[in-house]
Amino acid sequence: MDLKTKALNLHRTYKGKMEMNSKVPMESMGDLSLAYSPGVAEPCIEIKNNPSTIYDYTMKGNLVGVVTDGTAVLGLGDIGPEAALPVMEGKAILLKRFANVDAFPICLDTKNVDEIVQIVKAISPTFGAINLEDISAPRCFEVEDRLRQELNIPVFHDDQHGTAIVVGAGLQNAVKLVQKEIPLLKVVINGAGAAGMAILRVLQQLGYQQIIMCDSTGIIYEGREEGMNPVKQAIASSTNPLGLKGTLKDAMDSADIFIGVSVANLLTRELIDAMNPDPIVFALANPTPEIAYDLAKEWGVKVIATGRSDNPNQVNNILAFPGIFRGALDVRATDINEEMKLAAVQAIASLIDESDLREDYIIPDAFDERVVSVVAEAVKEAAIESGVSILYQRVLEV
Amino acid sequence: MDLKTKALNLHRTYKGKMEMNSKVPMESMGDLSLAYSPGVAEPCIEIKNNPSTIYDYTMKGNLVGVVTDGTAVLGLGDIGPEAALPVMEGKAILLKRFANVDAFPICLDTKNVDEIVQIVKAISPTFGAINLEDISAPRCFEVEDRLRQELNIPVFHDDQHGTAIVVGAGLQNAVKLVQKEIPLLKVVINGAGAAGMAILRVLQQLGYQQIIMCDSTGIIYEGREEGMNPVKQAIASSTNPLGLKGTLKDAMDSADIFIGVSVANLLTRELIDAMNPDPIVFALANPTPEIAYDLAKEWGVKVIATGRSDNPNQVNNILAFPGIFRGALDVRATDINEEMKLAAVQAIASLIDESDLREDYIIPDAFDERVVSVVAEAVKEAAIESGVSILYQRVLEV
Repeated sequence: MDLKTKALNLHRTYKGKMEMNSKVPMESMGDLSLAYSPGVAEPCIEIKNNPSTIYDYTMKGNLVGVVTDGTAVLGLGDIGPEAALPVMEGKAILLKRFANVDAFPICLDTKNVDEIVQIVKAISPTFGAINLEDISAPRCFEVEDRLRQELNIPVFHDDQHGTAIVVGAGLQNAVKLVQKEIPLLKVVINGAGAAGMAILRVLQQLGYQQIIMCDSTGIIYEGREEGMNPVKQAIASSTNPLGLKGTLKDAMDSADIFIGVSVANLLTRELIDAMNPDPIVFALANPTPEIAYDLAKEWGVKVIATGRSDNPNQVNNILAFPGIFRGALDVRATDINEEMKLAAVQAIASLIDESDLREDYIIPDAFDERVVSVVAEAVKEAAIESGVSILYQRVLEV
Repeated sequence: MDLKTKALNLHRTYKGKMEMNSKVPMESMGDLSLAYSPGVAEPCIEIKNNPSTIYDYTMKGNLVGVVTDGTAVLGLGDIGPEAALPVMEGKAILLKRFANVDAFPICLDTKNVDEIVQIVKAISPTFGAINLEDISAPRCFEVEDRLRQELNIPVFHDDQHGTAIVVGAGLQNAVKLVQKEIPLLKVVINGAGAAGMAILRVLQQLGYQQIIMCDSTGIIYEGREEGMNPVKQAIASSTNPLGLKGTLKDAMDSADIFIGVSVANLLTRELIDAMNPDPIVFALANPTPEIAYDLAKEWGVKVIATGRSDNPNQVNNILAFPGIFRGALDVRATDINEEMKLAAVQAIASLIDESDLREDYIIPDAFDERVVSVVAEAVKEAAIESGVSILYQRVLEV
């Protein structure tokens, strides 16, 4: 049976992938009188009188809302909120399987940014955190920014930050392997969408000083007129310090690192040959990368990472988001901030000892059981240190 | 330990009462590739191309959204969406326990009718049906009416219809027991809120012709000026055919049936004594009824029903809503219409054989295992007969 048939059979057999269950006994009138009327009035009254006890008496503190408008689903694009539901159910059960976080899909039948913000705010009492998923750029930036400002629970857009965090971790190890120095490296990011923007931000925080971003028009630089917008204007002014102009080919000249969040089979022999010795390539187009793993090795790429599970070095968000939400929820963080994201980058990278590091092992395996707890611990600590934990506060040493 | 302590302990121990679980295996890269990327793209594409397959490939077809704005929670009133969450979690796990229906709480941080309608419509792609819960009157009427019109999935306000259906069923059996004829009976309903209105509608459909409705101002009649509004105007013109005026006491004169959805300890000896022989009393104020069970018996009430689980004849919505949602979902009904509600009334009543009928056994026990399937079957059949089932259609006999 091929993958398509198997996947359809699985979904049809179970009629979806998730279910809701009771955690409490419900077998007698006595059980009912505690879990429902009249006993249930007691936690209601407690929460009414002391709102923060909602975390003690309800599921809120372990519950993530997985919110989409179905506009940028997988590689399928704008397929709508109904067709997006299988992905959101999948995301929800991944959170449960990997981090024991409960999650529930909210598929919104609107693409209007104001409405999305208003609706997520209105339904937020039930949730301890919000994961935005598969919302197309540039609307996803505004939705995330506004919700982070207006809600007191963490809001995380996994398509941006999850990918960026795993890329950051993989790069830390790849650069260590080729024994180069981060500040000196020339990095080309091809693709200025949601993931590309988030990768840029992580790399800037990791100390990369010479990053060139390209879109379908070519290199983004200050003063470019074609295909600009406020987001790309901001890119132009914070990247490309030498003011390079031209095509992707011009950007690739003497590049040390290429990161593609763009289109299948984009990288030619000529582009690879233009790079510095020991080139590092992250080819993240899905399902077909910018260059196939084996071809990249054949053409002399030192370290190649892709989004594919059938290649080594898979950039898989599963390494990041479960531990990030676990950590954020455990300390009741009000935000998932840059400090927490960077802590996740270092935690994931740290799982591979220097002695184990190989060209085909710069990123831990998705089922490596250490990942979630190591990421969660690092994220918790960063949340406390950066002052966004409601539950814990750092005690200053005297 | 008292009920309060026990209830708080239960909620705190489990941190809420429900959780989300995976129904599919998730233990290997192979599992992941079917339930998530890349295999999950296949059901997404199927749903995009053929929207009704969302019922085959996702949880939608078995999933109820339990929606509240927290304005009329239990007897606690307007306690807000956060404090309402324990009740909504309770409702959700009751649906699972009694009818294997998955359900999820949506607690809305808005009381605006337009916003509630807009938000429920926007989040509806995930759900197969909507249960409105603990929304105060008269806003609940408009919310329900508009959502029933504007959504193609069933919308049911349990506080209205669930209660009314069980009251209707209990009355069928009580009237049989006292051997009276429905059309001739004088019924007093005290309380013109959400439940009172729905009880009125069920009783009218059961053939009661002399119903008197009272509110805090007294009897509602055509031409009354004090405390009227459009809803009460409609009551006045469809009830009280003799145009009775006055207080509750005037209404109770020669009444056969009293139904209270009002306040504790309202019924005095004088009011009971004013009733016809073999009086039937449904005293549904919660947690303290309009008259205590034992006192009613002492004062000569033939059949007394209350909302309390520690008395016989408990009017418990659990007898109605699980089977109703089970039936509606099973035939993919687009509505829960009057035919389906009336079918539920007769189904619940039918569970007590004439030979088993007693003054203290007119309503089945909440844990009677026959209830859900009998109600679900009746509701399914009524849905098909009334033409609101997407899955089944009655084949006309030639």
